[in-house]
Amino acid sequence: MADTPVFRRRYSCRRFARTTLHRTMLEQVLEAAVWAPSAGNLQPWRFIVVTSDELKERLAAAAHQEFVAEAPVVIVVCAVPGESARRYGERGRSLYSLQDTAAATQNILLAAAELGLGSCWVGAFEERAAATALGLSPAWRPVALVPVGHPLETATARERRPMQDVVLFRSG
Amino acid sequence: MADTPVFRRRYSCRRFARTTLHRTMLEQVLEAAVWAPSAGNLQPWRFIVVTSDELKERLAAAAHQEFVAEAPVVIVVCAVPGESARRYGERGRSLYSLQDTAAATQNILLAAAELGLGSCWVGAFEERAAATALGLSPAWRPVALVPVGHPLETATARERRPMQDVVLFRSG
Repeated sequence: MADTPVFRRRYSCRRFARTTLHRTMLEQVLEAAVWAPSAGNLQPWRFIVVTSDELKERLAAAAHQEFVAEAPVVIVVCAVPGESARRYGERGRSLYSLQDTAAATQNILLAAAELGLGSCWVGAFEERAAATALGLSPAWRPVALVPVGHPLETATARERRPMQDVVLFRSG
Repeated sequence: MADTPVFRRRYSCRRFARTTLHRTMLEQVLEAAVWAPSAGNLQPWRFIVVTSDELKERLAAAAHQEFVAEAPVVIVVCAVPGESARRYGERGRSLYSLQDTAAATQNILLAAAELGLGSCWVGAFEERAAATALGLSPAWRPVALVPVGHPLETATARERRPMQDVVLFRSG
């Protein structure tokens, strides 16, 4: 397993131990997030590190997924579309700011996996309910909830389509 | 440097040697791409591996960035928004399919960096010109051009905002 690339070791973890997340581990995960690439290096993102039980419950309710509240930490990834739009217009708002925050989210998941932590990319949630719970600026759009913690299960990523169904070659 | 996490070692490479990319390296990069997470594991993506000089020139023209043609390989990451929309409606089309393909793109960049290869996420390009050059199905949307190859330069990622400007804590 040590030779399995981290891209493949990462899986969606939905059962977490109540163990606190060490500060240094959290820092490494956040460090990975901020080193994601972004269009024009604008970094149109904010990361809200939620450890309050009450707020985690409200995020779980916004996602209709109770396990979200069971992780010691939920990182709420927010896009700031206006920051991208100022330089890149509509393409910045509706594409780059979403891609940039998705790259940061993926870094979070991979850094967590490298540390032996479990995490899950939760994209299905009521954005307004999450924003209200956290008192977010209207300029910030929550685009992913990422519970992170020590896994209570070991699982593997679900199967993938065969490579030849999604990869095409154009060699001229 | 060996201890520097790959998230931080990755940088935008814009000068490539003409050396061919070994097949096994290309396969590892593509493998990383397809193991990215996606909403409902729908994998609403296609990866076009372009090695034809003529097509690389047309992609470079679509991006107004000549260096794109200089890499031995350009991976064109395409979203298939309709595949996400079928299950998730408008949120699938305008959010999940973009996030999923961005996560796959980030995996490509990181896998390349792990292999000592250079790559660059090119998001600014004329989608229609790229789609026409490649003869893409109208259902596929090209969302990133990723030149990959052996780097002719060693650089580092650009600076980032201070952590405290983008990370907030909600501990209740």
